[in-house]
Amino acid sequence: MGGGWAHGWGVETMKSYHIQYGGGLESLRLREHPVPAPGPTEVLVRIWANSLSSRELNILRGRYPLPVADDIIAASDGAGEVVAVGAEVDRVQVGDRVMGVVFQRWFDGRFDLAHADQLGGSLDGLLTEYAVLDQDGVVPIPGQLTYEEAATLPCVAVTAWNALVGGQGLAPGEHVLTLGSGGVSLFALQFAKLLGARVIATAGSDEKAARLTELGADAVINHNLTPDWAKQVRELTDGRGVDHVVDVAGSLNESLRATATGGEVAFVGSLGGADPIDARLLFTSSVTLRPIALGHKAHFQSMNEAIAAADLRPVIDRVFPFDETPAAFRYYLDGGGFGKIVISHAA
Amino acid sequence: MGGGWAHGWGVETMKSYHIQYGGGLESLRLREHPVPAPGPTEVLVRIWANSLSSRELNILRGRYPLPVADDIIAASDGAGEVVAVGAEVDRVQVGDRVMGVVFQRWFDGRFDLAHADQLGGSLDGLLTEYAVLDQDGVVPIPGQLTYEEAATLPCVAVTAWNALVGGQGLAPGEHVLTLGSGGVSLFALQFAKLLGARVIATAGSDEKAARLTELGADAVINHNLTPDWAKQVRELTDGRGVDHVVDVAGSLNESLRATATGGEVAFVGSLGGADPIDARLLFTSSVTLRPIALGHKAHFQSMNEAIAAADLRPVIDRVFPFDETPAAFRYYLDGGGFGKIVISHAA
Amino acid sequence: MGGGWAHGWGVETMKSYHIQYGGGLESLRLREHPVPAPGPTEVLVRIWANSLSSRELNILRGRYPLPVADDIIAASDGAGEVVAVGAEVDRVQVGDRVMGVVFQRWFDGRFDLAHADQLGGSLDGLLTEYAVLDQDGVVPIPGQLTYEEAATLPCVAVTAWNALVGGQGLAPGEHVLTLGSGGVSLFALQFAKLLGARVIATAGSDEKAARLTELGADAVINHNLTPDWAKQVRELTDGRGVDHVVDVAGSLNESLRATATGGEVAFVGSLGGADPIDARLLFTSSVTLRPIALGHKAHFQSMNEAIAAADLRPVIDRVFPFDETPAAFRYYLDGGGFGKIVISHAA
Amino acid sequence: MGGGWAHGWGVETMKSYHIQYGGGLESLRLREHPVPAPGPTEVLVRIWANSLSSRELNILRGRYPLPVADDIIAASDGAGEVVAVGAEVDRVQVGDRVMGVVFQRWFDGRFDLAHADQLGGSLDGLLTEYAVLDQDGVVPIPGQLTYEEAATLPCVAVTAWNALVGGQGLAPGEHVLTLGSGGVSLFALQFAKLLGARVIATAGSDEKAARLTELGADAVINHNLTPDWAKQVRELTDGRGVDHVVDVAGSLNESLRATATGGEVAFVGSLGGADPIDARLLFTSSVTLRPIALGHKAHFQSMNEAIAAADLRPVIDRVFPFDETPAAFRYYLDGGGFGKIVISHAA
Repeated sequence: MGGGWAHGWGVETMKSYHIQYGGGLESLRLREHPVPAPGPTEVLVRIWANSLSSRELNILRGRYPLPVADDIIAASDGAGEVVAVGAEVDRVQVGDRVMGVVFQRWFDGRFDLAHADQLGGSLDGLLTEYAVLDQDGVVPIPGQLTYEEAATLPCVAVTAWNALVGGQGLAPGEHVLTLGSGGVSLFALQFAKLLGARVIATAGSDEKAARLTELGADAVINHNLTPDWAKQVRELTDGRGVDHVVDVAGSLNESLRATATGGEVAFVGSLGGADPIDARLLFTSSVTLRPIALGHKAHFQSMNEAIAAADLRPVIDRVFPFDETPAAFRYYLDGGGFGKIVISHAA
Repeated sequence: MGGGWAHGWGVETMKSYHIQYGGGLESLRLREHPVPAPGPTEVLVRIWANSLSSRELNILRGRYPLPVADDIIAASDGAGEVVAVGAEVDRVQVGDRVMGVVFQRWFDGRFDLAHADQLGGSLDGLLTEYAVLDQDGVVPIPGQLTYEEAATLPCVAVTAWNALVGGQGLAPGEHVLTLGSGGVSLFALQFAKLLGARVIATAGSDEKAARLTELGADAVINHNLTPDWAKQVRELTDGRGVDHVVDVAGSLNESLRATATGGEVAFVGSLGGADPIDARLLFTSSVTLRPIALGHKAHFQSMNEAIAAADLRPVIDRVFPFDETPAAFRYYLDGGGFGKIVISHAA
Repeated sequence: MGGGWAHGWGVETMKSYHIQYGGGLESLRLREHPVPAPGPTEVLVRIWANSLSSRELNILRGRYPLPVADDIIAASDGAGEVVAVGAEVDRVQVGDRVMGVVFQRWFDGRFDLAHADQLGGSLDGLLTEYAVLDQDGVVPIPGQLTYEEAATLPCVAVTAWNALVGGQGLAPGEHVLTLGSGGVSLFALQFAKLLGARVIATAGSDEKAARLTELGADAVINHNLTPDWAKQVRELTDGRGVDHVVDVAGSLNESLRATATGGEVAFVGSLGGADPIDARLLFTSSVTLRPIALGHKAHFQSMNEAIAAADLRPVIDRVFPFDETPAAFRYYLDGGGFGKIVISHAA
Repeated sequence: MGGGWAHGWGVETMKSYHIQYGGGLESLRLREHPVPAPGPTEVLVRIWANSLSSRELNILRGRYPLPVADDIIAASDGAGEVVAVGAEVDRVQVGDRVMGVVFQRWFDGRFDLAHADQLGGSLDGLLTEYAVLDQDGVVPIPGQLTYEEAATLPCVAVTAWNALVGGQGLAPGEHVLTLGSGGVSLFALQFAKLLGARVIATAGSDEKAARLTELGADAVINHNLTPDWAKQVRELTDGRGVDHVVDVAGSLNESLRATATGGEVAFVGSLGGADPIDARLLFTSSVTLRPIALGHKAHFQSMNEAIAAADLRPVIDRVFPFDETPAAFRYYLDGGGFGKIVISHAA
């Protein structure tokens, strides 16, 4: 039945990259499947681009905090075109350019384990030629973005957006501190500037510092030369400290020292060796500590509005063709460069 | 000049209890002063009642995180009657029943070291017969409260209010966890019920558990019998955990384990030996950790409206006469009972 | 196929009351249908109770602002038990006690015409023995409520909740004004008390005034004796005016006069002859005017939490058996009594 | 006494322009006074620039809704340098560049008649060489602005800021509609762009339309050629309407027609002949109508942070020397040009 229907757009099989929890890079496998048919409220998306996130690496390394299904199709991040819709679909049309929402059922409000199902984790991911998603599990791509650019957003950009606007909120003119040049940090820098904030960034080299300055950083501290950067952050803010930190490094005590009284540290990730947090320092700093688990669909949508209005372009490091996906993973495992690693199905 | 003016209400000298930072109970001294005259925008208050808070004990013990002036008049908490006002005072009248606002210059918004001046710390406190305060540094007493009851509010009740409403906010029907039967915890319990929440409390004895149940607790856990109470909190909430914890004990890791994904732990005080916080536990819990430094004047005012509308009565343990202030301190140092320790100038 | 499946719970046909837009009471018809089968993400609900709302009357009178389908099954409000679920349903179970959400697709955030589909309007309603709804279009009934009580909530209670909490929000101790004793007003009164507010109500008779006082009104004004009640509202609030009005009568200029500077008038309904609003009065009052179109699913859910925690019981005027539905409509058209008119399928 | 003190900075008399409520332009008088001395918590400001607002015109015309003192010094808007401070002043220093806060006692929260005192209305204004203000009644000038530019902010810019951010808030990517090229509208346009919004403006001529486009308007409608501009606004927004209108013209029904369901119309001023508002249109639009009475000190401060971070420059039409103040008023009465009319004491 799905087959007969599939003839409408003329393809019957598709290729997908699968990975295994804790299986390392050698568990990456290309498989062929029949193209699935969308159910009544689902859409079929021809995926044209993906990006890789630390989620993928953590799954390969076997240290990911949420359930991961066996032999899943990899990658939470993907963008493509809707090529077929179920009979009851009324909010998406064939031809729409869309991105998948990582937490397919977390629409708004507080995170809840009841809506923890996620692409490329408990659910199959998007490193595949075709994917079936609920019509409520996709969002439109901002007009100016290519599929490659759009594919960088679902995981790290939504995380950065939530980190900045999901807690106390960010007022124009406030100070934001970003750490390093990972995916979340680059988007946090770009979004903070878009929202009218001043940004202090840290970087591990002068070359990266120069790139961060180009992206709009008002000041950059070399964290290799200045490992106790909190002091320098305070000097740059007349002793006050910043209002928000987006901490991707788990250097939470140093972040607390860099933050103004009553400010906020958004704590993104760091599943590995984050140091214990000094409770007395936390108390005397009066800084709220907010762990971030990505973000919900409403974050994704408001972020897309902002990206569209500001004509913001994501930073892409390298684009690999779909056939060279293993090389993309290896490049990422080896440390990558500056910006997101993208896989293009059209390249 | 102040003297001539003072004749209007017929008293020229007053008694005040002074303490010394780190001086222990033996530093408590009764002194006599001329009654001060209010400046143009100030009011003179005849203090009729005080209460004692852990702030006082921490100052005597020499472990208080904010600056404390030398030989200050003790006590942040006091209530009384306005007996004289400066020439430009337009928002307070002679005869008004008022309480002092602990942070005299923190009116609203984020806490800032620029408005850290506080009664009984960097500024003289209210354990005195008369006090001069700025007209903006006092708030009216809810109609139904006695001076003794009102004197319990400025420090611990405002802290409890801020802990519940100052962060993510508390919706009716949500679950709140309070720890023990200290001043902040009792008010947190009463306010949480007033706001329509369900409350789980911990207590150190069956007798205290009974008192907490009388105050409205929906469930009480004996934390001596069940030191790993988080598990029991989860059972009481169908595995979900509570939405808010008001943690006065510094047991932050256990609190994180007791809190629902996306909930909030308000961290009140614990200047002493709070254990380091497990960063990985913080991240996987997705619980926001919010240190509380008392609250601002707007918190105090909105709390008073709520107290008035609900006809809420504070829990008073014992009332000592002003002359027996040293005994009140000693009783407090020895552990006190259940509720606030009050000093009455009229007793 | 639906038939074969239906055998599982043993009923194959059901009765439903249909109405016609603008058709008056004579258009009310009882029809028999096959019981529908739920789709993959849908649930089948055995409806056990309904209530009538002014929506039904407005549809019969042909003055309803949103699209109404031809010959629809009547009534937005219904409560019942889930008796079957589709293959992919994962958030609702057979046996769940549920209410239908009026706007089936308005989950949260701002109202949008894209999610204007509503039960008993553009979609079939719930005045039927069985109804198929999306699993996301139902919410659980608070534990203490009967089906009859639960059936009163979807339309007027959600509207009242949104009116109080959906705009500036309602702080404990603030003043709320409710107008008359219609369904929205009674819930607004009960919810305002639950939220710690003080309530002034208006009523058309001493008898109704007494009922409102029983429900918790702190003061009641007879609007027949005092048609310019704003003056009296100001007297009851020391000249200040109330903080919130829930205006169901369209007496907006009088409401503006009764409201404190910077307060809010929630404008509920009044599709008929509301007088034009005096723009100068609006400006000088500094009162925000907020039209209310029911509320979203998240309102419904947070309201249910509050109702459960406070053990609140809706006010029911009369209960009619399902077979006497025409009499229930007639009774409503004739003005009804005090509280909601309910239709019980079990009576 | 003030005299002796005044010798410290060497000037003893000052000139001030006074106006009379309802007195028309002929009531404008230049007077000479002794320079006042600041009280203990006050500061003395050497005013270097003023701007004119419609408040001044409304006072001259005798139609202003708040109390106006007799023979007051004119102008709510002024900027200058602190030249002396009272003995207890601790938050402002001699040499600080400051602007006066129009509502001297409205610091935050809802507007209340208790803090309705305003410069150039119930209190003397700033069209004078020296002014004494409370230390809490001034805010620092953003670093990049001249005194002339700073003098344009206190009234219309704060109003525009409040109109955009004080209600539902403005998210990046949302649509804003501004009407005409008055002072509030120009700032609303600039701020909306700074906040990442898309702006549709109306203008009365092609020349003004071109200026608005330069300032960042994404589209401009000529309201003389298209008096029913709501239709065109809908076309420009794919039928949806804008999310926010800043309505300075009192064309509220047309604004409601131009606004998306659930959006907001901020209603600024229009004390004259605003048409009555169609209550049914208001209800069916689901648009919140929010009258704006300037804004509070916290609005002023957050706006200044945004202006500083974005390096925003106000639009100045013409600068008149202090001696030619009557000509400035006449120019304003005759309709002015494009941007604010400024009076410079240094010119």
